[in-house]
Amino acid sequence: MPKLAREVYIAAVGMCKFGNYSKYGPPENMKTSRDLWLEAYIDLMDHMTNKVKIQEEVECLFLGNFSSDLFEQQGHLAPLMAELIGLTPKPAMRLEDACVSGGIALRQAVIAVASGFYDTVIAGGVEKMCDLTTAGVTDTLAAAADAIYEYPYGATFPGLYANIGTAHMAKYGTTERQLHCVGIKNHENGSLNPRAQMPMTIKDMMIKAQKKAEKRGKPIPEWEDEYAFLDDLSVNPMIAYPLRLYDCSLVTDGAAMLIITTKENAKKYTDNPVQIIGSGQGSDTLSLHSRPDRTGLLAARTAAAEAYKMAGIGPKDIQVAEVHDCFTIAEIVATEDLGFFEKGQGAKAVEEGITARDGQLPINTSGGLKSKGHPIGASGIGQIVEVFKQLRGEAEGERQLKDRPSIGLCHNVGGSGGSCTVHILKVD
Amino acid sequence: MPKLAREVYIAAVGMCKFGNYSKYGPPENMKTSRDLWLEAYIDLMDHMTNKVKIQEEVECLFLGNFSSDLFEQQGHLAPLMAELIGLTPKPAMRLEDACVSGGIALRQAVIAVASGFYDTVIAGGVEKMCDLTTAGVTDTLAAAADAIYEYPYGATFPGLYANIGTAHMAKYGTTERQLHCVGIKNHENGSLNPRAQMPMTIKDMMIKAQKKAEKRGKPIPEWEDEYAFLDDLSVNPMIAYPLRLYDCSLVTDGAAMLIITTKENAKKYTDNPVQIIGSGQGSDTLSLHSRPDRTGLLAARTAAAEAYKMAGIGPKDIQVAEVHDCFTIAEIVATEDLGFFEKGQGAKAVEEGITARDGQLPINTSGGLKSKGHPIGASGIGQIVEVFKQLRGEAEGERQLKDRPSIGLCHNVGGSGGSCTVHILKVD
Repeated sequence: MPKLAREVYIAAVGMCKFGNYSKYGPPENMKTSRDLWLEAYIDLMDHMTNKVKIQEEVECLFLGNFSSDLFEQQGHLAPLMAELIGLTPKPAMRLEDACVSGGIALRQAVIAVASGFYDTVIAGGVEKMCDLTTAGVTDTLAAAADAIYEYPYGATFPGLYANIGTAHMAKYGTTERQLHCVGIKNHENGSLNPRAQMPMTIKDMMIKAQKKAEKRGKPIPEWEDEYAFLDDLSVNPMIAYPLRLYDCSLVTDGAAMLIITTKENAKKYTDNPVQIIGSGQGSDTLSLHSRPDRTGLLAARTAAAEAYKMAGIGPKDIQVAEVHDCFTIAEIVATEDLGFFEKGQGAKAVEEGITARDGQLPINTSGGLKSKGHPIGASGIGQIVEVFKQLRGEAEGERQLKDRPSIGLCHNVGGSGGSCTVHILKVD
Repeated sequence: MPKLAREVYIAAVGMCKFGNYSKYGPPENMKTSRDLWLEAYIDLMDHMTNKVKIQEEVECLFLGNFSSDLFEQQGHLAPLMAELIGLTPKPAMRLEDACVSGGIALRQAVIAVASGFYDTVIAGGVEKMCDLTTAGVTDTLAAAADAIYEYPYGATFPGLYANIGTAHMAKYGTTERQLHCVGIKNHENGSLNPRAQMPMTIKDMMIKAQKKAEKRGKPIPEWEDEYAFLDDLSVNPMIAYPLRLYDCSLVTDGAAMLIITTKENAKKYTDNPVQIIGSGQGSDTLSLHSRPDRTGLLAARTAAAEAYKMAGIGPKDIQVAEVHDCFTIAEIVATEDLGFFEKGQGAKAVEEGITARDGQLPINTSGGLKSKGHPIGASGIGQIVEVFKQLRGEAEGERQLKDRPSIGLCHNVGGSGGSCTVHILKVD
């Protein structure tokens, strides 16, 4: 089982505001992946405790990106992103494993520093998705599934995760209401995140829908509560049973980056760097239909086992986690794969509020991919930004957990579970 | 300057026959990237000195691939390729830096093993290019250039390297005849490589053109020699001055893989593993027009400096090299960037036969990207396969150098020089 030969720390983090910066929207709102990457860099520099000239320190860029090729007709993104922040002619490379591209970029950065090969590197991620049509985005995301045996037969990602959803419902009795609970919780968290793409609670959305009806002179719909709102097919249409529109994460433009370094170097940046005590990665068949069981992800269990073993701790020690909620069912499955709850108990846990901000184990305090947004290659890095802030007591406003956690976990999945990374963070 | 904390060895290599396996060709000749990858695996197993069950040994897959997204509408390729060779659920990731995707996959594998994080991994590469039209391939390759400032203004890759060519001609007096020398030499080498896509000498091509004319009842063209043939625009049209059709490398489907491991583990596989004594990587501006000088590549000089320093040797110690001849001018520039020849002397060196198989420093004995083929993500790994064989005296037939070399180098470039890796190999 791999070990980290020396301690690895996160010295600083930065991210842009996740959002829709389409070139087809208002011109003043248009942003390219270059703009987003530079905003993440400025955010990192602005919030660095001690100002360090990183161009003198950083030796390599590990960049997570799913498919700038298909989204922007731009491959070879890493040297470009290195150039923009003054790293030329240092090594720069892109890492790709679909939605876990950010997670594997971080893992390679961790290995490189732990090994002593480099002392200081940047692990970053960027994705610019909103310049394509909805059909174009669906088509591009489908490239993360099997292009011979899945997509040509109509299996898009909502369909694949719906399949995981129905399997989980059939085996464990998971309900649509429990799926709603995930969305309600994550939007409630995201509403407190200034960098979230959709910082609105589901109740906000309900009120917005009522106001819209009023403005149009139509009858104002009356919903008993958020659950009734989410059950209403006229506002929350079915995408692939049991997943509705609000069970899906967002299509997002975004970028994020981390300074990964040694314990000694980290002191130049800050007095309280965050240590990465565990890193795990696993894979599985690319096709969902090739797996014997669809109620959990082998890649996630493999990654978690490696990360826990490396860290010398178990699921009970985790005090906060960001998990890959690309769909609401994915969060439930994740909390089981990570061992937070018994198999089949994840849905009950969210329903009972155990994973809420004031619960026993807060999950996705950032709002998750559901509310904060899911700019594929940047998502895994964005998760680290949130846990870094929670561990240092720096999450903005109400979002900061009252009992500041000292150990947190990030779980990032690629495709329908073909790849997964798990990282465990700790602060003294 | 990074160091390798422990020795790293190549224990076994495999590659498929590079070629055009288009789905639009004869059905019996059609191959997917999955087929090519499995052929590389079978080649590796067939030629492994001692048969080792690699599924029990290999801990991670580092996969080089430029753009299966655009070529095959297939992202998330690494777990799929891992699955095909029985590695699931082990970590698998894709690395991308345009045409140096194979080179950076190898470098990450080297770092992972040197660090002690893993003991045995696979560094591989695959690309399936021939299912697109010529226009589609040009369009896809252009994604390795700047998608905002280069391609929209008509700068395709022949155009970018033509720009390097004219700069080199203007500054150093390099001639079109000298460019022809590169092609003649590499096709002569490639004609001896059973895995080459176009195993023909330029003289073979000349004779073929004459026979074709004869068959059609047209006047048989008389060319004095290969140079006259290559000067004839009717058979070798201008693509972008000074680069003609036969100055360009091939569009290729192919795959290759290497077992990278520790000295101790390598003994299980073979008595004469090849050591990687140096690894270097550099970057440059993505856009060619942003660079102060276009007669050489900063990324290549940076990568070479790191690799030489790590190996504790210099250019004079290299006895054989595979360099990135995506265009004939690129080989000339490479031999200067690597310090084999003084700046401006590379063209003269090839003309004088110094880089021929029987010359002082044989370059591209495999046939290079020019004759062996250039399946982007696999090219950098394919280079290693050749040098591995030359160092072990295992190159097929006449291709094997008479004085078996003991130190060799591989130079792999991305885009117009936005990225580069250099690896130095040694055998006892």
